[in-house]
Amino acid sequence: MSSNIGEKIKLSIFGESHGEAIGCVIDGLPAGVKLDMDKIYLDMSRRAPGKDKTATPRLEKDIPHILSGVLNGTTTGAPLAMIIENTNTKSGDYSNVLAMPRPSHSDYPAYVKYNANNDIRGGGHFSGRLTAPLVFAGAVAKQILAEKSITVGAHIAQIGNAFDDMLDKNNVTSEQLERLNKMTFAVINPDAEEKMRAEVENARMDLDSIGGMIECAVVGMPVGVGGNMFDTVEGKLAQILYGVPAVKGVSFGEGFGFAGMLGSDANDEYCVKDGEVKTVTNNNGGILGGMTTGAPIIVNVAIKPTPSISKPQRSVNLETMEDDTLVIKGRHDPCIVPRAVSVIEGAVALGILDLMM
Amino acid sequence: MSSNIGEKIKLSIFGESHGEAIGCVIDGLPAGVKLDMDKIYLDMSRRAPGKDKTATPRLEKDIPHILSGVLNGTTTGAPLAMIIENTNTKSGDYSNVLAMPRPSHSDYPAYVKYNANNDIRGGGHFSGRLTAPLVFAGAVAKQILAEKSITVGAHIAQIGNAFDDMLDKNNVTSEQLERLNKMTFAVINPDAEEKMRAEVENARMDLDSIGGMIECAVVGMPVGVGGNMFDTVEGKLAQILYGVPAVKGVSFGEGFGFAGMLGSDANDEYCVKDGEVKTVTNNNGGILGGMTTGAPIIVNVAIKPTPSISKPQRSVNLETMEDDTLVIKGRHDPCIVPRAVSVIEGAVALGILDLMM
Amino acid sequence: MSSNIGEKIKLSIFGESHGEAIGCVIDGLPAGVKLDMDKIYLDMSRRAPGKDKTATPRLEKDIPHILSGVLNGTTTGAPLAMIIENTNTKSGDYSNVLAMPRPSHSDYPAYVKYNANNDIRGGGHFSGRLTAPLVFAGAVAKQILAEKSITVGAHIAQIGNAFDDMLDKNNVTSEQLERLNKMTFAVINPDAEEKMRAEVENARMDLDSIGGMIECAVVGMPVGVGGNMFDTVEGKLAQILYGVPAVKGVSFGEGFGFAGMLGSDANDEYCVKDGEVKTVTNNNGGILGGMTTGAPIIVNVAIKPTPSISKPQRSVNLETMEDDTLVIKGRHDPCIVPRAVSVIEGAVALGILDLMM
Amino acid sequence: MSSNIGEKIKLSIFGESHGEAIGCVIDGLPAGVKLDMDKIYLDMSRRAPGKDKTATPRLEKDIPHILSGVLNGTTTGAPLAMIIENTNTKSGDYSNVLAMPRPSHSDYPAYVKYNANNDIRGGGHFSGRLTAPLVFAGAVAKQILAEKSITVGAHIAQIGNAFDDMLDKNNVTSEQLERLNKMTFAVINPDAEEKMRAEVENARMDLDSIGGMIECAVVGMPVGVGGNMFDTVEGKLAQILYGVPAVKGVSFGEGFGFAGMLGSDANDEYCVKDGEVKTVTNNNGGILGGMTTGAPIIVNVAIKPTPSISKPQRSVNLETMEDDTLVIKGRHDPCIVPRAVSVIEGAVALGILDLMM
Repeated sequence: MSSNIGEKIKLSIFGESHGEAIGCVIDGLPAGVKLDMDKIYLDMSRRAPGKDKTATPRLEKDIPHILSGVLNGTTTGAPLAMIIENTNTKSGDYSNVLAMPRPSHSDYPAYVKYNANNDIRGGGHFSGRLTAPLVFAGAVAKQILAEKSITVGAHIAQIGNAFDDMLDKNNVTSEQLERLNKMTFAVINPDAEEKMRAEVENARMDLDSIGGMIECAVVGMPVGVGGNMFDTVEGKLAQILYGVPAVKGVSFGEGFGFAGMLGSDANDEYCVKDGEVKTVTNNNGGILGGMTTGAPIIVNVAIKPTPSISKPQRSVNLETMEDDTLVIKGRHDPCIVPRAVSVIEGAVALGILDLMM
Repeated sequence: MSSNIGEKIKLSIFGESHGEAIGCVIDGLPAGVKLDMDKIYLDMSRRAPGKDKTATPRLEKDIPHILSGVLNGTTTGAPLAMIIENTNTKSGDYSNVLAMPRPSHSDYPAYVKYNANNDIRGGGHFSGRLTAPLVFAGAVAKQILAEKSITVGAHIAQIGNAFDDMLDKNNVTSEQLERLNKMTFAVINPDAEEKMRAEVENARMDLDSIGGMIECAVVGMPVGVGGNMFDTVEGKLAQILYGVPAVKGVSFGEGFGFAGMLGSDANDEYCVKDGEVKTVTNNNGGILGGMTTGAPIIVNVAIKPTPSISKPQRSVNLETMEDDTLVIKGRHDPCIVPRAVSVIEGAVALGILDLMM
Repeated sequence: MSSNIGEKIKLSIFGESHGEAIGCVIDGLPAGVKLDMDKIYLDMSRRAPGKDKTATPRLEKDIPHILSGVLNGTTTGAPLAMIIENTNTKSGDYSNVLAMPRPSHSDYPAYVKYNANNDIRGGGHFSGRLTAPLVFAGAVAKQILAEKSITVGAHIAQIGNAFDDMLDKNNVTSEQLERLNKMTFAVINPDAEEKMRAEVENARMDLDSIGGMIECAVVGMPVGVGGNMFDTVEGKLAQILYGVPAVKGVSFGEGFGFAGMLGSDANDEYCVKDGEVKTVTNNNGGILGGMTTGAPIIVNVAIKPTPSISKPQRSVNLETMEDDTLVIKGRHDPCIVPRAVSVIEGAVALGILDLMM
Repeated sequence: MSSNIGEKIKLSIFGESHGEAIGCVIDGLPAGVKLDMDKIYLDMSRRAPGKDKTATPRLEKDIPHILSGVLNGTTTGAPLAMIIENTNTKSGDYSNVLAMPRPSHSDYPAYVKYNANNDIRGGGHFSGRLTAPLVFAGAVAKQILAEKSITVGAHIAQIGNAFDDMLDKNNVTSEQLERLNKMTFAVINPDAEEKMRAEVENARMDLDSIGGMIECAVVGMPVGVGGNMFDTVEGKLAQILYGVPAVKGVSFGEGFGFAGMLGSDANDEYCVKDGEVKTVTNNNGGILGGMTTGAPIIVNVAIKPTPSISKPQRSVNLETMEDDTLVIKGRHDPCIVPRAVSVIEGAVALGILDLMM
């Protein structure tokens, strides 16, 4: 079970949902970066549950506590260690999970792989709660990128049958992304929020859950970051994005839409604009030959419905090896997509920063 | 520019399209694997161009020549080095590319990154031709996996508006995949081929190109391969798949379809079957919590239309920094999707083997 | 500044000498290992200062506090995070170090590299105190190796002009190493301790410090661990051993003695013993072609005198760029060799475990 | 068996002594470096055998043939692949080695690890011949370092009981190193050569072999390259140096001499010289806290006597598991130290370059 990623910026995440603390170590950060803790808290609060009906009523206080690597608010270049103490965990809720794996959760393969030694309480190290340190690390990365005039931002593109407007791939601005950065329910078209909330509320009333899609952009990239073959920006970002639980699809620019396109429609022609080479369109999402083109990076991420639903489900009693019915108790998000926005931003920011160091 | 990938099975690919030779080194292979060279040649010939109207009329003879790591047809455990000599290259065809970047190719970011030192002839190290060593390495990986009763196979799921049947996610068999392994134009539904060929022929007649989608499956996986966070099967396969030029989307199981689904429809319930725990459905594509569930791995890959089209396109003269019109001469595939099938299989096989060593 | 090491067992160390806490994350540990905390505390207390006149009078309470990865005293397979809170730090002592680099310390290159952002208090992240998490991780590794009947142990071979007996390279036993494991001043020949303590006391009285050498052995290794070229046991161990501050030499078996030897004296001939292939001698320290031979691994490590001495020394005022005289105040070990024994053991155990996973 | 090393400059070496070809792929080289092939040939000829009585009479023609990554004599930034064809191999000479492992060779652990699949002819992938691609890669690295005014050079410090003068650790110059770079028998004191040759000749006449030590220096390093903990210059160089067959000790500056020193003698005090901070002495070999100090890097490498000697030796028949006597036929170097000089230089140059990219 490896919770490490990165070549130059190495992130190591630890902790279990119902353990004493979760946290991370970020190794390889440049020295001298002044950290704006308020921005970090904002990103973490965007991920934190309990703010509205789309989220679990649990009250997680995600207060990051920095142990090392920062002196007088500025990075020292030494590894930055951070912990978040776990409070308000009710481990009793998960008792019957030990015997019966929850459908579409990691329970069953984790049971086979780690057997009785896996800490299953609250999902243990597999819990979505482990994305909190990722958001923290991503928020640090965003600030380092901001010093290079690079902005990362995302919005909820889809929840069920409700859709937001899509970003203008070739003309999205840092101002627009910064606006999204401040929103708890990040959408471009204000009307989308109501429709999306209705989708979530319907699922919740139905003891069900619902999936969605997040679109993320990076503006301000220099040309030529990344590389071809196995150093592609796409591969780098996909690897880290698939580390976010529930992500089942990652695509760039037109993504799967390319499958139905002609080259003459898909190709991004070049023109001179203000003395610089620009693409006329940006179907490729700012990446060609694995390298940045200078146009905005556009990545779409599919998020599956949270597997914890209150409806009874077929499962297997692993002790008796008999079919059985599972009713998951406890508090569950009917939709994690709104909370996942700052996670996706953080993952993308970390991937980009690692490529640029 | 890194052309290395893998943690336990390390693949290093080298060569330029119009250089003396291309090839690869595979480090970390187990000793004692008897290689069936015919199967390797078959996979390479499926990738090779010139077999029909969907492909470029160039005649590449992709004969892999093994230099080391194999003795009497069996791996020794030492690094396996292989070269393919380049023949029949006509470098003259690409002369005007030097001044004007081809839209949606790597030319422009490569120009910025490597300037005059990049070998631009035939795409150089960025050429799709570099997928030949990847197919070779993948074919070797497939044989090692076969010894563990694991089979990898893929088919053309879509070309433009023509669609093949999709694999039965929960019940695809190794026999079905092996049948696909032998096909030059790999489709499940024989009717699909004609429609797809028509799409390609229309694009070709129009001096255009066309994209598509490949669906790949792995059957026979044990439970628990991979890991959560940054060791996920999804992240591992995505990273290597994005190393294949023209790939712009990678998804697993229902992929982007999850965005519109309810949890109760998306979840894969469990049942006991022949004394073993099985999923009733396989919407998650055989992966939960980043680990294999034992159900078939299902991955979908979006391939953009080949950017080399014969239609005139807007580009920029990098010397004069003026808008200009580019007409790409030379021989180009109107559709690389059929040839990409064995590349995708190979990439997936390598990723799986690396996870299992 | 990277404090990460390991391919399968990934160790990430963090913290500064005078920060809030130091600690580590160990990623990739097997699940189900029952940890004997007393043994871990013993190794940490062997490293801890303040026990006798060879060590600094500071009273560090190195109580490791496990945050994750262990449930009911047993590893879960998830990352093991551990912190040690820093107490009893007197930062005032190091004030003049900011302007004048201490000879043979990391101060000067760290000043150039990190400038004003480096946390210089107590050596910051460069402090020898950071070896405490390494001892912790090594103690965990030793327990996992013990389950495979592999024992790691070391002794003080030399301090100044005082020498211990050397291990019998071909016949050292696990019992002997376990005896050394329990000693605070680990020597084979009891007479050596007195002579060594006299060397240290003389240096201390002289406001000076003194260097030494540690010999470490690993018994119980299977044949064939490691590999040739860049996977050698020697290279792996050297890389991690050079991560221990003050280590300036690492050699195996006869080490630098080989330079004066004939092949006929140096070669380890083979014989059959109890039905198994054994080497008659073990000049190569249990490693041939980078792989273990089954004979004990023998590694010697040179430790330079601790650079913090109380004698006045020539240095440079970095602000005025003028020659000046530095008098280092504060509490310093005249000899760190006795405390380094469990650090070297831990580093070797970690390296071996990583090779064997 | 991994023959890969490097984080930014990734080197992959392949080939077997008696296979078709050996070679390497160097990934991550900067674009635009003009290669002086004559200098590369010179380094390779310094390693090549057969020039005088210290070496094997085999005539290896080590002509490197570049397959990719170089266009018009200049690096393109794409992976540089190089092969050397094997000629003049007489595999028959090694027949009895299959049954009886040669003392102090890799034969026995390789037999246990790879069993019958290992290509044992001429040492296979374990052969010292595999250092030829390392010299090639090192020669390329030296040229890239030379552009940064960094020079790497080495000399034979010891063969048996014959000693050369040692480098002046604090004042060695690039001119001195460049002189050594051109010598086939690299010594500082011309008198040393004769004594060393006598040592070798005596061993040869005695059907024996003899060991030695090489001292290597790097001048022109900027301050602050490398890092503490697991990014040390020492650890990096040691890891790659232990990849050279027969290396059994690696130390820096005073190395094992530190064990007998007082801090006041060992410490390198600072002074201002020509407006810059300099160390008065350089006992630490140009490295403090794992980082370069700007003083010359000084590394010493112990080379064991080549294990192939013509004297009868005790070994074991692995088929009958009985004690037996081995007489190694074939052509063997009585001393590989003179040939190893350019190998050590190359290994050090590669390690330094990787740290600096």
